[in-house]
Amino acid sequence: MLACGFEKTSLPAGVEKSSLEKLALECGSVILPLPVTDDGVNLKAEYSAEPIVLDGIFAEKMRGRRVFGGKMERLFCTSRIWEEIDTADYSACEEFAVRNAVPTAEGAAEIAMRGYPGTISGSHCLIAGFGRLGRALMHVMKGLDADVTVSARAPEDLAWIEASGCRSVETQQIGRSGVYDIIFNTVPALIFTRQVLSHLRGCSILVDLASSPGGIDFEAAGKFGIKACSALSLPGRAAPKTAGKIIGDIVYRMVER
Amino acid sequence: MLACGFEKTSLPAGVEKSSLEKLALECGSVILPLPVTDDGVNLKAEYSAEPIVLDGIFAEKMRGRRVFGGKMERLFCTSRIWEEIDTADYSACEEFAVRNAVPTAEGAAEIAMRGYPGTISGSHCLIAGFGRLGRALMHVMKGLDADVTVSARAPEDLAWIEASGCRSVETQQIGRSGVYDIIFNTVPALIFTRQVLSHLRGCSILVDLASSPGGIDFEAAGKFGIKACSALSLPGRAAPKTAGKIIGDIVYRMVER
Amino acid sequence: MLACGFEKTSLPAGVEKSSLEKLALECGSVILPLPVTDDGVNLKAEYSAEPIVLDGIFAEKMRGRRVFGGKMERLFCTSRIWEEIDTADYSACEEFAVRNAVPTAEGAAEIAMRGYPGTISGSHCLIAGFGRLGRALMHVMKGLDADVTVSARAPEDLAWIEASGCRSVETQQIGRSGVYDIIFNTVPALIFTRQVLSHLRGCSILVDLASSPGGIDFEAAGKFGIKACSALSLPGRAAPKTAGKIIGDIVYRMVER
Amino acid sequence: MLACGFEKTSLPAGVEKSSLEKLALECGSVILPLPVTDDGVNLKAEYSAEPIVLDGIFAEKMRGRRVFGGKMERLFCTSRIWEEIDTADYSACEEFAVRNAVPTAEGAAEIAMRGYPGTISGSHCLIAGFGRLGRALMHVMKGLDADVTVSARAPEDLAWIEASGCRSVETQQIGRSGVYDIIFNTVPALIFTRQVLSHLRGCSILVDLASSPGGIDFEAAGKFGIKACSALSLPGRAAPKTAGKIIGDIVYRMVER
Repeated sequence: MLACGFEKTSLPAGVEKSSLEKLALECGSVILPLPVTDDGVNLKAEYSAEPIVLDGIFAEKMRGRRVFGGKMERLFCTSRIWEEIDTADYSACEEFAVRNAVPTAEGAAEIAMRGYPGTISGSHCLIAGFGRLGRALMHVMKGLDADVTVSARAPEDLAWIEASGCRSVETQQIGRSGVYDIIFNTVPALIFTRQVLSHLRGCSILVDLASSPGGIDFEAAGKFGIKACSALSLPGRAAPKTAGKIIGDIVYRMVER
Repeated sequence: MLACGFEKTSLPAGVEKSSLEKLALECGSVILPLPVTDDGVNLKAEYSAEPIVLDGIFAEKMRGRRVFGGKMERLFCTSRIWEEIDTADYSACEEFAVRNAVPTAEGAAEIAMRGYPGTISGSHCLIAGFGRLGRALMHVMKGLDADVTVSARAPEDLAWIEASGCRSVETQQIGRSGVYDIIFNTVPALIFTRQVLSHLRGCSILVDLASSPGGIDFEAAGKFGIKACSALSLPGRAAPKTAGKIIGDIVYRMVER
Repeated sequence: MLACGFEKTSLPAGVEKSSLEKLALECGSVILPLPVTDDGVNLKAEYSAEPIVLDGIFAEKMRGRRVFGGKMERLFCTSRIWEEIDTADYSACEEFAVRNAVPTAEGAAEIAMRGYPGTISGSHCLIAGFGRLGRALMHVMKGLDADVTVSARAPEDLAWIEASGCRSVETQQIGRSGVYDIIFNTVPALIFTRQVLSHLRGCSILVDLASSPGGIDFEAAGKFGIKACSALSLPGRAAPKTAGKIIGDIVYRMVER
Repeated sequence: MLACGFEKTSLPAGVEKSSLEKLALECGSVILPLPVTDDGVNLKAEYSAEPIVLDGIFAEKMRGRRVFGGKMERLFCTSRIWEEIDTADYSACEEFAVRNAVPTAEGAAEIAMRGYPGTISGSHCLIAGFGRLGRALMHVMKGLDADVTVSARAPEDLAWIEASGCRSVETQQIGRSGVYDIIFNTVPALIFTRQVLSHLRGCSILVDLASSPGGIDFEAAGKFGIKACSALSLPGRAAPKTAGKIIGDIVYRMVER
């Protein structure tokens, strides 16, 4: 196994550091990082001695290989050659999203444990949204014996929340649904407006897990004395080993098919 | 509130026994049972002194009312008049199915507790299928500290099973996936063939929850010394109060809309 | 391995049916049932073709053997010879009591599941007493997502109950502590008097697990419309395989020492 | 309510900052911190503008009051006058220890979450010791879906561990009991010797929760590539609000009696 762009770190036994040229020549499958690029210009490669530019030259070297990567849309903008290469986006499948929900939920719980001055056990916790992350977070917080309320819109989701032993509330009713110590937002829409927050003053910590621009009026939260924080890229930060293993497992399975 | 067809039982305060005629005259909304009919001829009404025939006369009386019922297809075959009546099937919505998954799962667990000569805690348990019932059953059996394996086909379902702290197995690999004390089938297809069962001889009890014709070769199970049983209509039998409340809640919400 | 008194049933491979004489001659260790005797006269042996009398002749045959049994006090009353025999009571150690708490708790939960017309999930459940059985029962009922309250007297027990994610109540305050659907009594004292029961009318089912005379005024329960039942010998009835394995494991360990 | 020694912080409404003299004059009950003193000379008072010396003068002021404190032994060494004062140590009762087990266990779990590069869900976790903290930690880690093994010595403790759905191992067998990702030590004795650690090389993180000198050969852990850390004063650090509430609740109850 060859690895390119890891000059500044050490690699486990069996992985050999290599130049991009050598790697492209010898390997049939190439795995690019998640996301492939942050800036749209260079490969995301924090351990690389020098930037690795994503241009026609880079793409040319990948011809004939099978190329895997995460959030590949940005890569395709860097060269037309990509249209002729066999690529696959491991971050696009539902399985990837589900498997990342657990490390994300644990990372979010850790933030709450650190920021909340009481114990999670016995605390009143609200989770806004019952998508993949909301579901995983409900499982983690209930496992820690919090008193968990989850908001959703669809009647069948409210039914699932109750079937899991938690309290359910319609998303629109969040403000009038109770008093909470800890709130997690997973909905990518402005749910926690100034008005809603005014009803939730007792809350100690509000963790926003929705991707930018997030779902919280941070200014209002500050005024009401609620410690609000935005938590992104959690799987990679909180559980890098698991995050890497998830990508590895999914790519292996993609190769096998 | 008026009730017709309950001559052989007593009713709670506030519900008055009535004839069908009176009921049809005075009530704007009528709730029929689940299923509306077992035999396609009479209303399902075990507490009725006499059979209540579902014919044109019955349908005629319902004109102008809002009529709710469960598994209404069979009712519509009894008279053309139904085409002109405002009906709604409370058993057809996703929420109904989800809410019934919990009493069904508890009923299935109770069958296993009664039939298995050991404790559920520490037992090895396989659940075939990760639909609504499989999911609810996983939750119940894990709550009882069984060592739970769940089978599914889709990679994201396998991911959810593991995210819930259980072992996952592809449905096709069930026969080679381990030794189980208790098996539940929720898949409406012949999963537990003679061949698969031959690998699962150590199993004590196999509960089939799939609707007829079920998913088990019962003859083969018998030969391999596996106690197999079919469990249907569980919500109503195991938790009649909950089953009734689910119908009531959903009908109320349907009326409000 | 020889077994005496099992004429009316079949035994697993490796166990040979034998007369008491042969067994006593060939075996260094003898395991008697739990309890050794029900009536103080005969060995408890429901599968025996004829009664096996516990008298001096029986005891004489056991001389020089190591004799294990459950509730051995009654055996010792049958003959003075027992004073000269090496005996051990497997039912007297703390480990035995703890290991039996799980099958007993599951058996009690099964009774509640069968008798209560709703689901355990979401039901309000009170457990009186936080001894071994109360603790095991709390674990099972919480695992099934009941809303669990446990009563105890010692402040540290109340603390443990809350540490386990349940509500605690002082035993004396039971009557005023809330409304319950399901109540379990594990305290061998009359806790559920007419007066206490008058506050708990909403309860559907009351399961008494305390050994005779139990802790419930059954007559009053009946008057208040509470279905009350007494559940004894649960481990053997609900999970005979586990109950037998517990005895086997403990005797093996006693022999090894 | 008067408070002395909080010059450097703000206090909630209803609590008035005061001098020691005024406080001693006006208050019948005085609550000292936990521990009363760190150095044996001054009161533990990090928010005080100046050190508050624990001497005869201090003690004299407390005459006639009821004085509560934590770890009071050290206070008694500072003056003979204490012999004539009505004191009570809130940290000495079993309830205090039990209630602190939960915040300590959550704090320990948080350390593991931060230090372990994978998810707790699915990780292999060993907890050495089944005292109050071991028990609370087992509950937390199992709630997070770790695969939990707990060590103990007494057979009834091993039985309780299994009754809780975890694996048990005799403390002496820890080294040969499996491969673990995360290990917690709660035993105040050198359990994790070089030899034992040599069998546990796969472990990522080892958290020592036993009071000094702890139970780990830290040098050996380092050699085997195991990240070992000592975690003390957890309740106060991880959940100050809960830690304070526990003291408050217990003192209130002591006053009431």
